[in-house]
Amino acid sequence: MSSSRPTMAEIAKEAQVAVSTVSKVLNGHTDVSVKTRQAVERVIARRGYQLPRAARSGRRRRIELVDLVINELDSVWGLSILNAVEQVVEEAGLWLVVTALHNRQSLTRRWVESLLARGSRGVILVLSELGDRDIQDLRRRNLPFVVVDAVDRPLPGVPSIGVTNHAGGYAATEHLTALGHRRIAVIGGPEQLLCTRARVAGYRAALEAAGIPVERQLIRYGNFHRDGGLSAAEALLALPDRPSAVFAGSDQHAVGVYEAARRAGLSVPGDLSVVGFDDLDFAEWTAPPLTTVRQPLHEMGATAARMLLRAVNGEQVASSHVELTTELVVRESTGPPPPTAGGTRMR
Amino acid sequence: MSSSRPTMAEIAKEAQVAVSTVSKVLNGHTDVSVKTRQAVERVIARRGYQLPRAARSGRRRRIELVDLVINELDSVWGLSILNAVEQVVEEAGLWLVVTALHNRQSLTRRWVESLLARGSRGVILVLSELGDRDIQDLRRRNLPFVVVDAVDRPLPGVPSIGVTNHAGGYAATEHLTALGHRRIAVIGGPEQLLCTRARVAGYRAALEAAGIPVERQLIRYGNFHRDGGLSAAEALLALPDRPSAVFAGSDQHAVGVYEAARRAGLSVPGDLSVVGFDDLDFAEWTAPPLTTVRQPLHEMGATAARMLLRAVNGEQVASSHVELTTELVVRESTGPPPPTAGGTRMR
Repeated sequence: MSSSRPTMAEIAKEAQVAVSTVSKVLNGHTDVSVKTRQAVERVIARRGYQLPRAARSGRRRRIELVDLVINELDSVWGLSILNAVEQVVEEAGLWLVVTALHNRQSLTRRWVESLLARGSRGVILVLSELGDRDIQDLRRRNLPFVVVDAVDRPLPGVPSIGVTNHAGGYAATEHLTALGHRRIAVIGGPEQLLCTRARVAGYRAALEAAGIPVERQLIRYGNFHRDGGLSAAEALLALPDRPSAVFAGSDQHAVGVYEAARRAGLSVPGDLSVVGFDDLDFAEWTAPPLTTVRQPLHEMGATAARMLLRAVNGEQVASSHVELTTELVVRESTGPPPPTAGGTRMR
Repeated sequence: MSSSRPTMAEIAKEAQVAVSTVSKVLNGHTDVSVKTRQAVERVIARRGYQLPRAARSGRRRRIELVDLVINELDSVWGLSILNAVEQVVEEAGLWLVVTALHNRQSLTRRWVESLLARGSRGVILVLSELGDRDIQDLRRRNLPFVVVDAVDRPLPGVPSIGVTNHAGGYAATEHLTALGHRRIAVIGGPEQLLCTRARVAGYRAALEAAGIPVERQLIRYGNFHRDGGLSAAEALLALPDRPSAVFAGSDQHAVGVYEAARRAGLSVPGDLSVVGFDDLDFAEWTAPPLTTVRQPLHEMGATAARMLLRAVNGEQVASSHVELTTELVVRESTGPPPPTAGGTRMR
């Protein structure tokens, strides 16, 4: 079967890049442009490729598993990461065990104990609460692990992948200040999450850069689901001096904000501008189509999986925190503030 | 750990049902109402429960894996099923290996060969092309398997779970004929899929029941994704005598139909009524909110996992095909045909 798979040189030729670039992509290095990386990944997706060492030698020795642990399997957000991880793991000739934490505060003993018995070679942890005990448990078993979207600050010695949440929050808010908004609210996810804190910090920085004072009552927190966005937005819209724009913190929050606006008889973006975060599929399908900050979810999953495979393979993996870039995608949910809103009112 | 988990009697008490009902739900029997099943599942989700035999004895013997194979991990449809399977498998103390087929036409040798080496106890196949060779491979290894949403007709001796696709297609179309539509198109998924054929057959039956002739040119096929719905709808709306309603075959098709309507300057439902199929999360968030046929995806996954665990446990599992019911959910994408449409024109 492997004979029909292309060599690295063939992939390089087809993607019109250097062999060293293909190697970089396969090995999870990040000094490759998104465009180039995607071109290489498209060829790999079409033609297939097997990591020469990890996969083949491993396959002959024994069947190898890697583990993915995720908080919940209930969102397209997690699905996109899972999808990418599965593809990379499968290409490498390994199998993926998927476990959801279901809001437990740490990995269960049972799960940790099963790792060695199952012959797991490594673990990818996605937005998981990872306590000191968990880390020690994994280290004691000498299992490599990679953290995607760490709940808390990057842990020393633990490779992790995230996105530029601060820059994303900044870009979302700057887009709104540039449109003339001055009363801009934010709805973060759970307050303890690193990604929430970074997005809200980016929001604050953009307001300060525009000379707009930060108001505590305009900073709210939700759960990244629609209901959390809805209730936070209902509280915001009930303020005597309501905001003319909301940076919703996630796409699902944003559809909750849409619903709150609808219930309050406000139009989006005529009365209220809304910016999401994630750029999930449905962001294009909402009415109006959602202006949002795109996270490279597929790339986060693929990079994490490649980093893990390098570690499984015995290579030295830099224990650094890798941040992939976010990008503002402007659609139709944002516009200038209404004439009566804070944006144009004399202060 | 297991001491803190409730007994079947405690679950029954909390869900206010008989112990035998809890047993039925846990064992994947289908002669329990959806309401009752959901009440029991909610208690189990909150309190936890471990299958007494499969899990505990198995856990002491060795760590056990079960496999889930799915065509692609790219849709909320599959995510909902995966989410339910993972919960049931985890509750039972087993681990779930997830593999995507990536449109390969059958299970790979490598995957089949890995099953025994990994100690897999059974397989759930979701919308997978399952050829005779695949079935023989699994049978030769004496591995129980359960098919969810079979691609083709139920195979003798293979337990399978599906939904009442024919009744769902009938209900969607009958809803449109009752509103007065007479030119009603359908966009099925890939034509070879059993679910597509059953939905289109339901559409035909409903038209016939309403005395409306079936027109070949109003029957189209897509890929269950938005782009497939879009291109099929663009062709339909370019017909000299365009339909006043479309049964879109999936929710993602439906958002493609919305886009085709938008491009053609038609309003939904004023000029064109649209019915989806699935009732994925975003169906409520589209504009207008989508009238659709709900599939009990969570229940499909949970039932399949429970059937598999019974077989893993050595119990006799009826090899029958189980069909869970679909339900029409009327939102705002359907209404009477416009005055100029075929519905009111004299024939």
